[in-house]
Amino acid sequence: MKNLFAGIMAGGKGERLWPLSRESHPKQFLKIGRKKTLIELTTERVESLVPRENVIFITTEKLKHKFLEYFPGYRVLFEPVGKNTAAACAFMAKVVQKVAGNDAVILMVPADHVIIDVDGFKKTVEFAVKIARRGYLVTIGIVPDRPETGYGYIERDGVIEEWGDLKAFKVKKFHEKPDRERAVEYLNSGNFYWNSGMFVWSVRDILDAFKKHMPGLYALLEKYDLTRGEDLLAFYGEVEEISIDYGVMEKAENIAVVEALFDWEDVGSFSSFDRVVDTDENGNVVIGDAVVLGGKNNIIVSDGGLVAIYNVQNMVVIHTGDVTLVIPRDDAQDVKKLLKEVRKIEGFESYWK
Amino acid sequence: MKNLFAGIMAGGKGERLWPLSRESHPKQFLKIGRKKTLIELTTERVESLVPRENVIFITTEKLKHKFLEYFPGYRVLFEPVGKNTAAACAFMAKVVQKVAGNDAVILMVPADHVIIDVDGFKKTVEFAVKIARRGYLVTIGIVPDRPETGYGYIERDGVIEEWGDLKAFKVKKFHEKPDRERAVEYLNSGNFYWNSGMFVWSVRDILDAFKKHMPGLYALLEKYDLTRGEDLLAFYGEVEEISIDYGVMEKAENIAVVEALFDWEDVGSFSSFDRVVDTDENGNVVIGDAVVLGGKNNIIVSDGGLVAIYNVQNMVVIHTGDVTLVIPRDDAQDVKKLLKEVRKIEGFESYWK
Repeated sequence: MKNLFAGIMAGGKGERLWPLSRESHPKQFLKIGRKKTLIELTTERVESLVPRENVIFITTEKLKHKFLEYFPGYRVLFEPVGKNTAAACAFMAKVVQKVAGNDAVILMVPADHVIIDVDGFKKTVEFAVKIARRGYLVTIGIVPDRPETGYGYIERDGVIEEWGDLKAFKVKKFHEKPDRERAVEYLNSGNFYWNSGMFVWSVRDILDAFKKHMPGLYALLEKYDLTRGEDLLAFYGEVEEISIDYGVMEKAENIAVVEALFDWEDVGSFSSFDRVVDTDENGNVVIGDAVVLGGKNNIIVSDGGLVAIYNVQNMVVIHTGDVTLVIPRDDAQDVKKLLKEVRKIEGFESYWK
Repeated sequence: MKNLFAGIMAGGKGERLWPLSRESHPKQFLKIGRKKTLIELTTERVESLVPRENVIFITTEKLKHKFLEYFPGYRVLFEPVGKNTAAACAFMAKVVQKVAGNDAVILMVPADHVIIDVDGFKKTVEFAVKIARRGYLVTIGIVPDRPETGYGYIERDGVIEEWGDLKAFKVKKFHEKPDRERAVEYLNSGNFYWNSGMFVWSVRDILDAFKKHMPGLYALLEKYDLTRGEDLLAFYGEVEEISIDYGVMEKAENIAVVEALFDWEDVGSFSSFDRVVDTDENGNVVIGDAVVLGGKNNIIVSDGGLVAIYNVQNMVVIHTGDVTLVIPRDDAQDVKKLLKEVRKIEGFESYWK
């Protein structure tokens, strides 16, 4: 599409899928049962909409080696330090402004989500771009299929525009991750979407929104030239660490949500692997070499080795050459707690860095 | 002791403690939380009784590399193929007969048992040698401290000799591994010992016993010269595969059991690790690098890596560089079943060989 840019947000601390992911090998560089890494698939999806020269990665200095390996020749913005999505969106907007002006539209997508239906993605984004060109800051909302408590929700308001299956609504309110009861309400109401963390906006509109809702950040954008190394360092030293949702989207008036035509999964923990990988006849997800006797509903991943389990249920079992992780599926989001303990121990650096 | 030889039985298929043990790296070469391997500790124990030149290992050709590495300069008998303990005891008896005659006494011990109390071991064996010199085939019986269903039992009969704490009895009967109810009976009766698989006998008596109770094997001993490679191969090709317990001990009349002064553990499965390694405050056995959050009563072994577990109970979790095993403690003896499945799969050879 004309004058459209894609910003692929590829930070990530490699925590939630540890030990498969590491600080130096975060989630977007995992394959999760596929032939390509999540970030490669994200890039392919995005390139169905924008030419390669309009694809811009934004990541941290720490991952430079990965981008040299996987995306030589691509444009990559290296943040000196991760400062959450508001800073990343601002950095991206300034870079696109410089090369394509204020009318350019930017699609911001996380690098590490799973979307199978590339065509649905393409159609949804094309429509979102159209809405963005009308002056909206557009979020892409996923139609929920379960009362998920792990995602934020977007409550829609009146229709802005419909076009075939495609629908855009004003946003009534962003909602934090709900408890189970509330998640069921959201699901049943039919007016709620999952917040996918994908956005579409023009350079002008997002910069205006920063000016209005994050004047501190905007002042830094005025003060520093982010194409200069020293200035970039200063900007990232001073800028507030906040998500674009908190900093801008929840405050702005001109917010729209476009209903996604595609299914989506952010693979936020091992327990969601069964939604992105086929299960065997006993409900086990098996990636890599494994022998499973009498085990049911397990998530089993072997990264270059063998997992052998016997009479084990509802468990996550991960093998890498240097680490074995065992955690009940229902506790899979607590991998971070475990990792926190690992990080405390001197001599264990190689297990997480 | 004078004219005493030690035969250290060091075959082993590396099955029960897989993946720590492998076909080429069986249990006796594991350290199991100690600084030395089980076979090194066994050898040290034995050398408190016999000079090094009277120590003879008996193992299979497959493990030649291990003995070259661990015991250079030691005498090692290599069986062309493992044929259980009767053949090994016969081979050993013929070798000792050749170097020291019919009056020599042989202590036969498995290489892979754990005995902490070296002094108790020494005293017990010295007494057993004395009993053997009276013409008995002596077994060493362990005083049971629990109704163990994983061991065979020896029922004692009248006293042969007492000397301080040391006692030798005639044997009334050998009993197979009992069910739980029977094991409780055995424990309560006070007349039962665990069958440790350690024996003491003179060359003359054991050969006489073979002649009487295993005439087929004895005929092969007459036919072949086991010091000659071709004959050894023929002997092992033809000899019956049977344990010394079944083949001789359960049939012979002149059997004695000497009550051991020491505790003993054969480490027959991962579930017994808590009897040979100290547990942490939550009942976990931890060998190697591990982080355990909210887990109780687990057996955790990391062989060159990290095991991280969370909210997991009563589980065996083993990490090696190439394999992760997860199995409930109560099922730990079924590692063999799991291994059988692994062996069926083409391309998985490196995981068990």
